[in-house]
Parts: sequence; structure tokens; C-alpha cells
Amino acid sequence: MDEFEFIKSIQQKSYVQPSLIKGIGDDAAVFRQSYQDTVMAVDTFVENIHFSRKTMHPFHVGYRVLAANISDMAAMGCDPAYYLISIVIPESWAEDELSEIYRGMKEIATEYKMDLIGGDTVSGNELVISVTIVGFVAKGSSRYRSSAQDNDKVFVTGTLGDSAAGYYLLTNESDGEIGGYDYFVNRHRMPKPRIAFAKWLESLSRISLNDISDGIGNEAAEIAEASKVSIHLDYSKIPYHHDLEYFTQEQQKKWKLFGGEDFELIGTVSEKEWPLVVEAGKQTNTKVTEIGYVKDNVHSNNSVFLYEDSKVTKLDKLGYTHLK
Amino acid sequence: MDEFEFIKSIQQKSYVQPSLIKGIGDDAAVFRQSYQDTVMAVDTFVENIHFSRKTMHPFHVGYRVLAANISDMAAMGCDPAYYLISIVIPESWAEDELSEIYRGMKEIATEYKMDLIGGDTVSGNELVISVTIVGFVAKGSSRYRSSAQDNDKVFVTGTLGDSAAGYYLLTNESDGEIGGYDYFVNRHRMPKPRIAFAKWLESLSRISLNDISDGIGNEAAEIAEASKVSIHLDYSKIPYHHDLEYFTQEQQKKWKLFGGEDFELIGTVSEKEWPLVVEAGKQTNTKVTEIGYVKDNVHSNNSVFLYEDSKVTKLDKLGYTHLK
Repeated sequence: MDEFEFIKSIQQKSYVQPSLIKGIGDDAAVFRQSYQDTVMAVDTFVENIHFSRKTMHPFHVGYRVLAANISDMAAMGCDPAYYLISIVIPESWAEDELSEIYRGMKEIATEYKMDLIGGDTVSGNELVISVTIVGFVAKGSSRYRSSAQDNDKVFVTGTLGDSAAGYYLLTNESDGEIGGYDYFVNRHRMPKPRIAFAKWLESLSRISLNDISDGIGNEAAEIAEASKVSIHLDYSKIPYHHDLEYFTQEQQKKWKLFGGEDFELIGTVSEKEWPLVVEAGKQTNTKVTEIGYVKDNVHSNNSVFLYEDSKVTKLDKLGYTHLK
Repeated sequence: MDEFEFIKSIQQKSYVQPSLIKGIGDDAAVFRQSYQDTVMAVDTFVENIHFSRKTMHPFHVGYRVLAANISDMAAMGCDPAYYLISIVIPESWAEDELSEIYRGMKEIATEYKMDLIGGDTVSGNELVISVTIVGFVAKGSSRYRSSAQDNDKVFVTGTLGDSAAGYYLLTNESDGEIGGYDYFVNRHRMPKPRIAFAKWLESLSRISLNDISDGIGNEAAEIAEASKVSIHLDYSKIPYHHDLEYFTQEQQKKWKLFGGEDFELIGTVSEKEWPLVVEAGKQTNTKVTEIGYVKDNVHSNNSVFLYEDSKVTKLDKLGYTHLK
């Protein structure tokens, strides 16, 4: 199979998005969007840095790289619509494995009603997958990190630390019975970005949102810095799956605060609109937990503070920083 | 400099595109485009496959990867507006060289009034640059390869074979004086996509367009196949720079037909609207040359024929095919 045949094999037979005018097959794709804003992001994944065959089947690699991008759309409060895939393929990846990567992407794309509208396929020495994602949102309704204000409540969706626990289970021999093995592994391999929940919040007058890819410490810090406020988190309130208690206190803490890759959302909202966030959780079957509050105080702004028992610590950006 | 500082260093201080709502700095970029169609493409470049330090300074690497993408926008008849850069950085590239790559991109982005609105920066073992480009075009005015019809005239812009000649000069010791050394090298390193020309054609009722990245044989074949017609090219009419005559007949022919990377346009247009194409060339200072015609005949469709002296040959897709 040469490049042309391969591209043909991954091409969709039909498209679901009504705004699409031209999909794959010319110099570029074309769509028309007159009534909403367009939202776009790019994310790149390198083998053995962002994923590994040790913990993922090729199907999961595809599923998860697209999930990470869809999660960015959730963090913007928008609906994902299109994706484009650039892939650098080394000799070590067989054709059927590549097809599995695309099958994984197609699986999650179908769940979220997205179309593959372009890409590029080249050879190289290591597998690199670069995803461009496009979404739409009601005009002026994008959710930014810079919208947090004094006295906002801070909340998160779902449970934290699951993905890191899954990764740990996949890379370590477990001594004894671990409850929730399948649950944690599945959360690591096939995360479900919170699109429905974020979309339900569209009517709120103000909300800040960020998705948890690098760990809640880092994501909260991004909101604090963009909004020029401080964020105060209560460690005892951070939600986790009950089976996380099979692990040591130290592991639990590390994973909940810095594990990342759960692709849940952290947000801040006024006390007045907080009931709407709770309602969004109910309507979209999304667990929502209040975990802290926002303060605008010149002495503490741009920082994140963690309250645990009687101690207060300042959370640093301990998320994984690429590039040297 | 860590990832965050590097991203900060390449961030634009201000943006020129009026449709932009949010540039770099959140989970995604946002723009609003109510009156035009949006056009999008992705292209990926791997060191030592698509470019090499032997023939390019880092500045040219940046200039040229973006030029290739802008050329796709020209082939769609649209105006480039935004770009997003994903880059995989190996240890072997120093920070000042990376800055030069971005300076090269910024140079051509400024020429074409484009904004850098996003990207991703990760480490890896080989340099990979993936460009996402976004452009706008009047509703319904995108130019497709599938629009060629019986009796259309076939034309190209500029001169062909220049980039291949430049590459040859950069990779071979020249025995004797070669005229046009700087010209050819510059055409290889800093091609100028034909946006102004393609935009001028917006009022035409019908035109097929493709950009010449892989060689005219391949690009003509793409139009022939998409339009289900045959294309007939007169070799003696293919335009070239007079200094190409310093090279052998064999070299000239190979470069003109299969060199590619000149990022000129090949198109087909009805006889009736041909004068408008000639006028577009005059208005935008673009050399335009008629080089053949289109036939819709069931026995020869999907093929490209080359007429040279008294011989007719069928041109195959001899463009560079990636992936095995």
C-alpha cells in the first residue's frame, strides 16, 4: 500500500458535519460557519514521550491522542467538529498497526460526531502524530482561563488520579489484588472529554475553564495567572475513585495533584451561578465537586494554595514541561 | 529557556487579522468568520526528508515550510490568514537555530499578512515541523482540481524547474560558470506562492487550480483524475528561466516536468475566460503561459499526455511518493 492507497483507506465515506463543503481530496478542506465562532488547537504526540506501546495498543494511541484534543475543545466550552492528522511513520510500525491507530481515532470521532477532513502522511525515524482540531461555539461564548474572579467557587468534574493509577498498573507488577484494575486502565487509555457538560454551561454569563492534562496544580496555576487571582484548594475535597485507596497515601496524593491526563475540567464560577453548574452535572451525568475558592488579593495573586489538615502549601507548576 | 519561555519568545505582540478573537495563550485560538468560507490544510516536514541543513539555513527552513502551505491556499484561490506550528525538537538543534526557523516563518507570514495563533512544542529525536494553515475565500469560490472541462486551456504561472536547479547547485560542485546561481538558489529556498494571482481570479465563473509541489506531471494528473478528463501538454511551451540552458537537455527536462517545489500554479480555464487569466497575470505581475488543452474523451480520460517534437508520451505520477 503506498501513500495514496493508505490515505484512501482512512478516508471517510461520508461526513456528518453540516458545515463541511469539501473534505479530503483537494489541496485543502473547506467549511462554512456563519453563526458561530471557530475554535482551533494543535497537539503533537511523540512515541515513547507521550505514549508507548508498553501501555497502549495502537487503537488506544489513536483514541487517546484525539481525546486529548477534544478535551481542549471542552475547556473552551465548544463543540468539536473536525480533525486533521499529520503522521510521521517509521519503518518499525506495520500497516495494520497504523490502521488500528486510525480506527481508534475514528471510534472517538464517531462518539463526538467529528469528521476527519485532512492531514499529511510522511516517513521518518520515530512515530509522531500531530492533531489539528476545529470546533464551534456560540459567538462570544468561548471559555477562557482569564475569567476567574474574587470569591468564585472552584470545581472539578469526575475523579482525579485515575489515569496515573492506570499507568502505574500497566507499568508495574502488582503485589496482591488491586480493585478497579480495568477501571483505571480504561481511564488511562480511553478518557472521555467533558464536552456535554461544558456545552450545557453555554448559558452561564461567566465561567473560567481549563482541562486537566498536566495535573490540577498546574491547571489551577494557569487560571490563577491568566485571571490574576489566587486559587485556594482543599485537599480533602479533591474527588477520587474509591479504589484509589488500594494505593499508598503518597501515591494517591501525587496522582490526584500531579497525575494529569484524566482530561477532567477544572473551573471557577460565581456563587450565584454555581447552582447552574450543579444542574449541568445532573443533566449530563457528570460528577461535579466544589474543591476551593478564588481570592483577588495583591499579596497572593497568581498562586495556588493547598490546604491539608492544618498545613497550607503553595502548589508549583509541577506539570510535565517539555523542551529541555 | 524552558518550553514556556520559548513559546513566549515566538508569540506575536499583536495580530493583524481582523477576524481573530483569541490568539496564543489559552487551550485554543478563536476566530469569527461570518461572510467567507474557511479553508484549512496541514503539511508536515521532516529533517533530511523534506529539508536539510546542507541546503538551507534554519531561516530558510522556516520560510519554506510556510511557503509550501501558503501555496496550498493559492491553489484553493483563497487568502491565507492564520498558521499554527507543531514542532518536535531534537537535542541537535540549538535554541538560536530554532529562533531562526521561527524568524523565517515570521518573515513570510508578514509578507502575506498572516498571524501565528497556536502550536505545540515537544522534544523528540528528529526535527519535525507540522504546519496547519487557515485561509478565507468568498463563499462558494474555492478552486478545485475537479473543475476542468473539455476544451479548457491549460496554463502555468512563472517558470518551472528553478527550484530543482537551485537544489542541484547547492548539492553539487559546479564545473564552470553557472548563470543565475543566486536566482535558482533563492527560488529553492524562498519560493513566493501565487496568492495575489489566484485571488485576482475570484470573479471567474470556473477554473481548476493546483499548485506545483510535486512536479507538473503529477499535478496535471491530479486535475485529470479529479475532473475525469485528459490533459495534453506541449513540452516546447513549458516556461523556464533562460539560465536553465546552462544545464543539459536531460536535466532541464527532468526538472521542468518532475522537479516540483517551484510552488507555481497549474490551472485550466475555458477559452472564453482565458483573457481574464491573462489580465490577472498582468495585474499581479505574474508570468502566465498557455501550455496545453483539456479533452473529455472516454478512451484517454484521467491521463496526461506530453507532446514533444513528433512524439507523444504518457506522463505518469512520478512525483515523490512518501510512505514506503
